[in-house]
Amino acid sequence: MGAINWVGFDGDDTLWRSEDYYRKAEAGFHDILGRYVDLDESRNVDHLLTVERRNLKVFGYGAKGMTLSMLETAIELSGERISAAHLREILEIGRATLEHPVELLPGIREAVEAIAGRHEIVLITKGDLFHQEAKIEQSGLADLFHRIEVVSEKDTRTYTRVLEELGTQPDGFLMIGNSLRSDIEPVIRLGGWGVHMPYHVTWAHEAEHGLDEASPRLLTVENPSQLPQAVAQIASRAG
Amino acid sequence: MGAINWVGFDGDDTLWRSEDYYRKAEAGFHDILGRYVDLDESRNVDHLLTVERRNLKVFGYGAKGMTLSMLETAIELSGERISAAHLREILEIGRATLEHPVELLPGIREAVEAIAGRHEIVLITKGDLFHQEAKIEQSGLADLFHRIEVVSEKDTRTYTRVLEELGTQPDGFLMIGNSLRSDIEPVIRLGGWGVHMPYHVTWAHEAEHGLDEASPRLLTVENPSQLPQAVAQIASRAG
Repeated sequence: MGAINWVGFDGDDTLWRSEDYYRKAEAGFHDILGRYVDLDESRNVDHLLTVERRNLKVFGYGAKGMTLSMLETAIELSGERISAAHLREILEIGRATLEHPVELLPGIREAVEAIAGRHEIVLITKGDLFHQEAKIEQSGLADLFHRIEVVSEKDTRTYTRVLEELGTQPDGFLMIGNSLRSDIEPVIRLGGWGVHMPYHVTWAHEAEHGLDEASPRLLTVENPSQLPQAVAQIASRAG
Repeated sequence: MGAINWVGFDGDDTLWRSEDYYRKAEAGFHDILGRYVDLDESRNVDHLLTVERRNLKVFGYGAKGMTLSMLETAIELSGERISAAHLREILEIGRATLEHPVELLPGIREAVEAIAGRHEIVLITKGDLFHQEAKIEQSGLADLFHRIEVVSEKDTRTYTRVLEELGTQPDGFLMIGNSLRSDIEPVIRLGGWGVHMPYHVTWAHEAEHGLDEASPRLLTVENPSQLPQAVAQIASRAG
């Protein structure tokens, strides 16, 4: 083992599929909204993201907040013309998103097991506490992790607190995740290490970051099977 | 100090007002719903609680879940006749509940400070992570607590995990709260101690419990000024 004491894993789109379900929800939402407004106008298509961002400071992240933002957007854009039946359909889209099955990324269990054999591992996942706990339970991966943290935001403040609780300096911490904004940038800013495993879709909000992607503290992999080697490589740099 | 190692405090309606805001939200909701259905029929008035309970396993606790349940109830009870404008008003009621000011119960700061002078204290609060963190921050009490835990459910399983993390046996743990169901019953079942401080209103769901209120492990107080003495009394029993 190198000087990496703890390896952190993100949950959504790192261990299991998530964004696909949100994209599916958005498509269903636009099907309904398209009966009231012209979706060829970009300001209509982009309005959901505008409302979601406006609501982040009241709702936080997660499917319940998204559902409330979809309802608000639909009422607003339709000029209050949308029917209760259609709003009920939007509610059902939100519920389906909360109840979607947890489907692990191919090869992730083996990767997590291999890394857990060499390092202490912690799951650090952002969003709605209740929904995240349900997904962790359904994933069947909970027992592999030495610690599990559900957090409301992933910024340097949150990682500072979590690293303190883990009893490690940032230089001994490596974070694995699909979001440069939430999983990698704050950890590298603190002096830690990152492995970026991009997912095929990224929410626009998460796509924004201020990271130097050429940082020597960062490796990028294409799929879970490459994770153990990337962790070993960083551990030898850090050690 | 007796053999009580840790004293736990509930948040909502123990440190700060909460249920009043939920009751106010419900009153506003019924004002709107009354335009569509007869609220003199008890099944109409009780329908929100029915829907909320049905949704607990998908939404968990908190104001976002309540808002989604209010919208669902209104659409259902009105037979999909309710207008988008009225549904928007219900959304606004939900947002106002999420943004309500945090108003400490009179005397609670002094009580928490006095108890913190003699025991390690932990805040254990249930509900929406994002909303609870916002309330904890606004309360100005965060620095008094040695640990803060936001949990999705308060049952024996949750308290077992938290007590393990605190490194205490149940016999060394005392929980203070307004809900016999969530704050007192599971702790006493595990072999711990409780101080019950009833709030003037209790959500119907929280009012149900299976506790023997004559338990020698339980004291009841009327207001925060009586808390330090009640804790001292239990500490001497436990010591």
